[in-house]
Amino acid sequence: MRIVQKFGGTSVGSLERIKKTAMIVKQSLEAGNEIAVVVSAMSGETNRLIQLAKDMSDEPTPREMDALVATGEQVSAALLAIELQRLGIAAYSFNGAQAGFKTNDSFERASIQTVESDHLIAHMKKGAVPVVTGFQGVDQHGNITTLGRGGSDTSAVALAIAVKADICDIYTDVDGIYTTDPRITNKASKIDHISYEEMLEFASLGAKVLQTRSVGLAMRYNMPIHLRSSFEPDVLGTMVTKEDCQMERAEITGVAYNRDEAKITIQGIPDQPGIAGNVFAPVANAGINVDVIVQNVSEDGFTDLTFTVPRNDFHATIKLLNDLQTSLNARAVIGDDSVAKVSIIGVGMRSHAGVAKKMFQVLANENINIQMITTSEIKVTVVLDEKYVELAVRALHQAFGLDGK
Amino acid sequence: MRIVQKFGGTSVGSLERIKKTAMIVKQSLEAGNEIAVVVSAMSGETNRLIQLAKDMSDEPTPREMDALVATGEQVSAALLAIELQRLGIAAYSFNGAQAGFKTNDSFERASIQTVESDHLIAHMKKGAVPVVTGFQGVDQHGNITTLGRGGSDTSAVALAIAVKADICDIYTDVDGIYTTDPRITNKASKIDHISYEEMLEFASLGAKVLQTRSVGLAMRYNMPIHLRSSFEPDVLGTMVTKEDCQMERAEITGVAYNRDEAKITIQGIPDQPGIAGNVFAPVANAGINVDVIVQNVSEDGFTDLTFTVPRNDFHATIKLLNDLQTSLNARAVIGDDSVAKVSIIGVGMRSHAGVAKKMFQVLANENINIQMITTSEIKVTVVLDEKYVELAVRALHQAFGLDGK
Repeated sequence: MRIVQKFGGTSVGSLERIKKTAMIVKQSLEAGNEIAVVVSAMSGETNRLIQLAKDMSDEPTPREMDALVATGEQVSAALLAIELQRLGIAAYSFNGAQAGFKTNDSFERASIQTVESDHLIAHMKKGAVPVVTGFQGVDQHGNITTLGRGGSDTSAVALAIAVKADICDIYTDVDGIYTTDPRITNKASKIDHISYEEMLEFASLGAKVLQTRSVGLAMRYNMPIHLRSSFEPDVLGTMVTKEDCQMERAEITGVAYNRDEAKITIQGIPDQPGIAGNVFAPVANAGINVDVIVQNVSEDGFTDLTFTVPRNDFHATIKLLNDLQTSLNARAVIGDDSVAKVSIIGVGMRSHAGVAKKMFQVLANENINIQMITTSEIKVTVVLDEKYVELAVRALHQAFGLDGK
Repeated sequence: MRIVQKFGGTSVGSLERIKKTAMIVKQSLEAGNEIAVVVSAMSGETNRLIQLAKDMSDEPTPREMDALVATGEQVSAALLAIELQRLGIAAYSFNGAQAGFKTNDSFERASIQTVESDHLIAHMKKGAVPVVTGFQGVDQHGNITTLGRGGSDTSAVALAIAVKADICDIYTDVDGIYTTDPRITNKASKIDHISYEEMLEFASLGAKVLQTRSVGLAMRYNMPIHLRSSFEPDVLGTMVTKEDCQMERAEITGVAYNRDEAKITIQGIPDQPGIAGNVFAPVANAGINVDVIVQNVSEDGFTDLTFTVPRNDFHATIKLLNDLQTSLNARAVIGDDSVAKVSIIGVGMRSHAGVAKKMFQVLANENINIQMITTSEIKVTVVLDEKYVELAVRALHQAFGLDGK
């Protein structure tokens, strides 16, 4: 098989960890595979570099930030290549430019456009291991760009697609995706197979194991991802593939939650066309991601608009809307920064009626008040008071038959 | 004027120092100059990176060492660019590949072949400041290469030549070249002007301020170098130019010394053609630099061969020659690792007879025994017991009229 193996910051976080990571590569190679590796910076290094720049200037330009932080992966790539060579393996490090990662010129959040990797394939065919810096590339002028936080996952998937790999192994510090957070219930269990669509929903709910962009990219090119632990390389993790690879499914695959939420309501605004745009355009311009949005039925020509934002953006959003209150003709802006989202996710719900209804009943039986509801084809999300998170997750995990699966 | 300014590791060694360095650039820019900057890594950073690699492997490959250590300059270049931008100056960092430094593929000691810098000139003409990583480039395959220790001086001179600069300012932590080491005599004084040839002799005697290669390159293209202190940017340093720029000269320009010497004598070898080659070929193959060589007059068909090596290589050289003693038919190999070199240097001695004779008299008056002598067109070097170094330097400094110049 041809495999791209991605190792995150903790897997290259020390010389000891790099040695263990090199052993994983060596074993895969000796099993007869062709291997290319993508690495993150040593854990902590990216933050160290960012702090240097911030100590220097309040507004370092994005171009220079990218040139600065891109060095982190170059260091870990060279060190891993050195260790692989020590083990007798031909290995060569490549930075973004050398590996052929061409991006647009959106510094700090660039998009990969092409990966010109024929020279890497040539190395792999000879049994050599290219060790490629994740998270970075160059724009059409040769400026160094980075893909934004977590971008190394996307680099790995893009490289896997470019070199026509059979699979992209993402090694991290957890051994896969669980039916829910094991810290909330010890009845959570690892999911062996999950579809891209489900993984996207888990990722967008803050499951930190895989960047949303990388999942979208893998889905588009149908590149299987194997999410697994570099601490337990012999244990199978979670396979992320397209749906039809999987066996008959339960109604739902897992229960996810996110505490990092705040709720804001604009009360009594005139219910006119364009009002949502008037509210959300300035919020978006301030770089704030609005998530769940609910608009109440209009009464007497006035309506209430409620939405959630990341908790960190709560105060900025309240301030922004208070400033806009007069121009919006709103009666009041109120908020609550102690809410959370709980979601049930599963491609199975497409073919099972009544999943949402069952969810609401389970929560009602626990006397949990639902503040907002939003649904997608494979997910039902409710917003509730943060204090009910554990109770809600445990009840749903049991009710949908996930306990001790 | 168009100026390339090079700042060494201490000049970018901390955020405080980078701020001071940026002020130097700003002042030069505001004086109406076009500026490009070359930086070293923050002091200590290159050693930190090398140590990481050594902790990983006893024999890291040169290619990966270069990829690893080249990150040091990329960090300092980005940080300086960020600080210049904070001061309102358009500044852009460029690594070796981006700045157009093409080298051969001798990793860890690459030679610059061309510098394709038209894009840097375009920036400079618009008042922007390119901040270029010293010490590095890429080979014809795009592999990252470094020029070897101190290579940033060579990078700066090469860039100055490529962008057709009027002068190359080398900022360091000393304010120029002195007539001799001020730690030996407080009558030493700064040399305002020095020729390339003299600078080469000073540099080869271990004056650490300027790398020998950079002087040779500047001489070939007649690029003036201004050696000066980043701690006292308003003080003029030492100008290194071609000889005819200078006023009438004293006999000698300065007195240099080097304690880092050891002397080895091979006694009683058959005086046959090829004997020197038989001795020095294996020494050179072991990477040991032989310096002063003296061969005694042959007596009875046998001769003694004496030469100096860096003190660090003394034991290795003795061992090597002991192993060869039988095949060389030598009577004995003896050595002394407590010798030193003292040199008088000056283009003036070309036109003044008797400089060497005067030197020997001065040393004889102080009862200093001369063990070996070697001369070049502008230098006379003697090897003597290390304990006489200070005495010899002070006596020569006074005798040749350099005291308190």
